Amino acid sequence: MLLAIDSNSHEPLYLQIRNQIRERIVAGGLKVGDRLEASRALAKQLGVHRTTVGNAYAELEAEGLIQGSVGRGTFVSPFAKGVVATDRSRRQASNDFFWDSFFIEEPREDSLARLMAAAFQPGVISFAATHGSADLNPADLVRRATDAVLRHDGAHLLDYGSSDGYPPLKKYLQGRLGRDGIAAELDEILITNGCQQSFDLVRRSMVAAGDAIACDNPTYTGLWRVFDSPGVRLIGVPVGPHGMDLDFLTAALEQNKVKLILANPNFQNPTGRTMSLEARKRLLDLAVRFQVPVVEDDIYGGLRYFGRDLPSLKALDQAGLVIYLNSFSKVGFPGLRVGWMVASQRVIERLRGAKQRADLHTNLLGQAVLNEIGRRGWLDKWIRRTRRHYAMKLDFIRAAMARHFPPEARCTFPEGGMAVWVELPPGLDAAELLVKAQDQKVNFAPSRYFYFQQPQRNAFRLCFTTLPNEQIEKGIDILGSLLRAEVRKAGTRRNSAAMANVALV
Amino acid sequence: MLLAIDSNSHEPLYLQIRNQIRERIVAGGLKVGDRLEASRALAKQLGVHRTTVGNAYAELEAEGLIQGSVGRGTFVSPFAKGVVATDRSRRQASNDFFWDSFFIEEPREDSLARLMAAAFQPGVISFAATHGSADLNPADLVRRATDAVLRHDGAHLLDYGSSDGYPPLKKYLQGRLGRDGIAAELDEILITNGCQQSFDLVRRSMVAAGDAIACDNPTYTGLWRVFDSPGVRLIGVPVGPHGMDLDFLTAALEQNKVKLILANPNFQNPTGRTMSLEARKRLLDLAVRFQVPVVEDDIYGGLRYFGRDLPSLKALDQAGLVIYLNSFSKVGFPGLRVGWMVASQRVIERLRGAKQRADLHTNLLGQAVLNEIGRRGWLDKWIRRTRRHYAMKLDFIRAAMARHFPPEARCTFPEGGMAVWVELPPGLDAAELLVKAQDQKVNFAPSRYFYFQQPQRNAFRLCFTTLPNEQIEKGIDILGSLLRAEVRKAGTRRNSAAMANVALV
Repeated sequence: MLLAIDSNSHEPLYLQIRNQIRERIVAGGLKVGDRLEASRALAKQLGVHRTTVGNAYAELEAEGLIQGSVGRGTFVSPFAKGVVATDRSRRQASNDFFWDSFFIEEPREDSLARLMAAAFQPGVISFAATHGSADLNPADLVRRATDAVLRHDGAHLLDYGSSDGYPPLKKYLQGRLGRDGIAAELDEILITNGCQQSFDLVRRSMVAAGDAIACDNPTYTGLWRVFDSPGVRLIGVPVGPHGMDLDFLTAALEQNKVKLILANPNFQNPTGRTMSLEARKRLLDLAVRFQVPVVEDDIYGGLRYFGRDLPSLKALDQAGLVIYLNSFSKVGFPGLRVGWMVASQRVIERLRGAKQRADLHTNLLGQAVLNEIGRRGWLDKWIRRTRRHYAMKLDFIRAAMARHFPPEARCTFPEGGMAVWVELPPGLDAAELLVKAQDQKVNFAPSRYFYFQQPQRNAFRLCFTTLPNEQIEKGIDILGSLLRAEVRKAGTRRNSAAMANVALV
Repeated sequence: MLLAIDSNSHEPLYLQIRNQIRERIVAGGLKVGDRLEASRALAKQLGVHRTTVGNAYAELEAEGLIQGSVGRGTFVSPFAKGVVATDRSRRQASNDFFWDSFFIEEPREDSLARLMAAAFQPGVISFAATHGSADLNPADLVRRATDAVLRHDGAHLLDYGSSDGYPPLKKYLQGRLGRDGIAAELDEILITNGCQQSFDLVRRSMVAAGDAIACDNPTYTGLWRVFDSPGVRLIGVPVGPHGMDLDFLTAALEQNKVKLILANPNFQNPTGRTMSLEARKRLLDLAVRFQVPVVEDDIYGGLRYFGRDLPSLKALDQAGLVIYLNSFSKVGFPGLRVGWMVASQRVIERLRGAKQRADLHTNLLGQAVLNEIGRRGWLDKWIRRTRRHYAMKLDFIRAAMARHFPPEARCTFPEGGMAVWVELPPGLDAAELLVKAQDQKVNFAPSRYFYFQQPQRNAFRLCFTTLPNEQIEKGIDILGSLLRAEVRKAGTRRNSAAMANVALV
């Protein structure tokens, strides 16, 4: 019996022996009636003390897997089969134990994903996820575009494609980017599976243990989860009324060797804040001064309902330091998983290599369909329609919140994007509010999910694009009642605390 | 003027100063006529020697960006604008220089990708890429399935989906896996963007610097490129007539702490070799004995044309140590980018988290379309048709090679898969043959691309599934002539060498 014993392992030797024999019995390598080596012989062979093997055999005997027979030796028990068969749950547990020590990172709590999943339970009014509206269904556009592209170029679209993207879509995006003031050559554009993958490609190509990354705090959860890996230091930059706090960022850049700045200038997720033109220019000056690239997430940039569009950082970028990210996911097509990046040719060349190693290329059908919808002018019309619809939704939720929310809830209404940010008086915890809201089948995203450090607990995000108006009204009404009760209680507590203080003085 | 000087950088201080001032002029932070600080003052402020600033200023002056004026100081030159505007190529070079030092890994030569790209040039007869046949175009199936799923479930398919996959597709695959002897629960299945992403998810979740990975050598280039990262040791296991050399593997497992075994039991890429049932069982015994998981790439498993199907490692896996990978890419739908993984629930749970961080989820339209094609029975018919077609192609190339190739070329004809492996007498280099073949517009993949260590140069892979028969005939004819000439020349060289030896004795 060949066993592999590792005396440097944290696992005791007798358990290593027990587990390996058990696995062999489970896997059928050792069958009922097979003789095990005498413990003395096995100990000698493995170079361990005889007691070690004895302990392993004792455990296996206690489990009913082996049995000793005086004068004859030790055998796999006739009951082993039953033990093995009825022991699936224990095998599962043993398998889990094996795998748990196998991964290179600790498992991550994924409470936000659970919250999001809860968002889709029937009967729940959910403001949690920044999804589109059920009233806006582009399935018919997609169906007609798919039909056309498969008739026209089907064989090609079902074959392997290029890692940097479907050429007609790149060409189309080049024109679109030009309209937005971004002059990009075709080799400065990379198609990805959306902004999440774009972040991931940046991380895997550019960020190693020891690097520091400056990032809005709070921010999109999927963003900091990508960059938050062992040895990488995330520097949380507070988000003020005009987005990223640039005084704080300047100090951070002076005091740290920062590798990348992650910025979200338009309708920052989750706060909805937008950087002014001056702030954008100042951020770029900082990038040039400290020679730190900026990753610009512009996923909400196409969704401005009021006020004037501001140039993206990339449009203002003279030094080639901005890596620009966008996707089709927020304007209506997340299920197709198509996004794009714009950066210097040298950067795109390297990210393209990373993309190839990651998954060869982005699905061609989705790329071709979006190109077709764009090329035919349907996309612009669709985006205009979406903007009008979401503008009405934003007006509606604003009015509902004015009717139902207490004045202590400070609401930030953005000029675009998908969510409203609500700050409660200090001391109130939005996660506690959520528990009560969920009892009444209302769901939202409390602030703590968006902080990767120093979590603020007294705020939450309400996505206004998903629900029909009557549900927005009902949900805001319920939240308003809960908020008023919380604020009242907090007031009472403060008064009692004040009284107590008086008594103590 | 605030500059950020890093005295620990490998970049000389004067270049840091020069570059930062240049960048500010380029970006417009410093404008024509703006005065620069006196070199003495700037030197003091930065804590560097005055000569350092002097050198930086001298370079900027030489570039025409700044100019000194006696008694008044140093200014941004009126010509700077012109320099900046006409200097796009130099800026590009400087930007390239900046980025080149920015990435965490060395750029990788991607000669295979270039070869593959050449495969699609018009007029080239290419045996290089393992792509499908132009005679088999499932676009019509996909078009009908897309139409149906978008009519039926369009809004849902264009919205965000679940990271583990589209539930109906998982259910369908569960049934399919069952037919192949793999009993998988739904939470033991993860949908990915194809095997390339599946490998990548394994790598990013399980493999860290210091780990050793045992892997066929030669193997699929995209596989070793994923695992080949700094600090990861790839142990190349030779591929014998029955696939992975298990005696070699055993020794490797005894002598190294191996983290993972990567196996490709069916029609191994590039050699086409298949592991026997006995070899599969022995590999699993090794996995259990050394408690090393096996990643099983079964991408060609569905493409057997002759002989009997063998159970996959996963079907034989009692211990839950196999991570099984497959996709729809080789049976006809690579452009949709849909694959799947099967492993213990614990493993899938962790890989699902990695998938979520990588790109949220796989595109839903592709998943729904493949489910629809499967559910309607079209997929089974399609695969049967594809197998019949490829069986004929394999017969055809075999006959053509018999007619045209010299007996010195030893050909391995597999019972399935997409490629034939040809070994030349030692001393011949398939890459040299390729140069001559490309002159005659014939393309193939020489063996050296598939080795991550100790490259054998005297073999090449011919994919037989892509080309129409007349092109196979023509290409094999051309290759045969070249091969005969090479073999003849090598023979002459050997004779001359023998003669030379005689003369020397």
